[in-house]
Amino acid sequence: MKKYLILILVCLLSLGSFAQEKPVKIVFDVTSNDAKVHQSAVRHVKSMAEAYPNSQFELVVYSSGLDMLLNDKSSVASDIRNMAEKDNISVVVCQQSLKKHDLTEAALIPGVKTVPDGILEIANKQQQGWSYIKEN
Amino acid sequence: MKKYLILILVCLLSLGSFAQEKPVKIVFDVTSNDAKVHQSAVRHVKSMAEAYPNSQFELVVYSSGLDMLLNDKSSVASDIRNMAEKDNISVVVCQQSLKKHDLTEAALIPGVKTVPDGILEIANKQQQGWSYIKEN
Amino acid sequence: MKKYLILILVCLLSLGSFAQEKPVKIVFDVTSNDAKVHQSAVRHVKSMAEAYPNSQFELVVYSSGLDMLLNDKSSVASDIRNMAEKDNISVVVCQQSLKKHDLTEAALIPGVKTVPDGILEIANKQQQGWSYIKEN
Repeated sequence: MKKYLILILVCLLSLGSFAQEKPVKIVFDVTSNDAKVHQSAVRHVKSMAEAYPNSQFELVVYSSGLDMLLNDKSSVASDIRNMAEKDNISVVVCQQSLKKHDLTEAALIPGVKTVPDGILEIANKQQQGWSYIKEN
Repeated sequence: MKKYLILILVCLLSLGSFAQEKPVKIVFDVTSNDAKVHQSAVRHVKSMAEAYPNSQFELVVYSSGLDMLLNDKSSVASDIRNMAEKDNISVVVCQQSLKKHDLTEAALIPGVKTVPDGILEIANKQQQGWSYIKEN
Repeated sequence: MKKYLILILVCLLSLGSFAQEKPVKIVFDVTSNDAKVHQSAVRHVKSMAEAYPNSQFELVVYSSGLDMLLNDKSSVASDIRNMAEKDNISVVVCQQSLKKHDLTEAALIPGVKTVPDGILEIANKQQQGWSYIKEN
């Protein structure tokens, strides 16, 4: 009887270790104005967020990457809108980059948030133990 | 009276927390020979160094990025010269990359320093807790 | 007599510290389909692995970088084969990327290993204290 209990316990534990993947935190950096880069960045963040629902992902867009998050210019607008709704994905844009192009938050795809400075955001995330992926 | 003192104290404290931003350390990696990448890298490092004077920034150039730091080829020569004079910015180039192109330090924009190996420099900075930004 | 022994010991220890460069661990990220990027990535990893034999290097290829590791498409096939044989270099490809292109491990240059997910591999390596270099 005790044997069965141990067996059941071991099974439960190993199930648990599968379900409960060690969570990761990854910040993705997009500065390219190439729509192909935008598309692969979206694919990466989406597939990671689906595969690892307990993990956290942030997409930081700045510099020449801005178009990726603009309502009337993005080639991935509907993906961005869906991603920004997920609990484990943040999509943020640099306020400096918006300002540089005379744009306000109204130009952004719904759900996209702003940060004062894209590079500082990425640097701080790394300081907080997030892993870093540059998209190009 | 006590209320006013507390109010003043709160104001002073919040002023303090603005002035005294937590310093960051960021190493920037440039390997592209695209002048646009050189220009945006310069813009990033310069604006960060101005916004966060107590923070430290290092620009590491190697591989195909070399032109960025050469006196007679750089499209950002005067910016590099000014940056290299700042206390909180270092601009360094990989000695291996210089050697590979049969160049000596004489070809470099004044103020640019050399490191034995660009990749090792970046790896070591990350080990020392610096955040990493790849420019592209 | 004791003095000499101590002197000899100090000399031996300092020799040791020269010979035994502090080891680094670097994970290289390739997603580009540009053969020039493949060639410079190979050059970087090879020269680091030769210069720092006690250090560890991993090249992670995913997304559009796949051609770099395919027997019939790579422009650096013989370099990859040699690198994958070294004790201090791993060359790995993302299983997701293989699957996406309907390829199996048979298409890979001998010695190349697979990981379930390229981005997760890089994120985990960073969590384990490896430095990160994005190739572009």
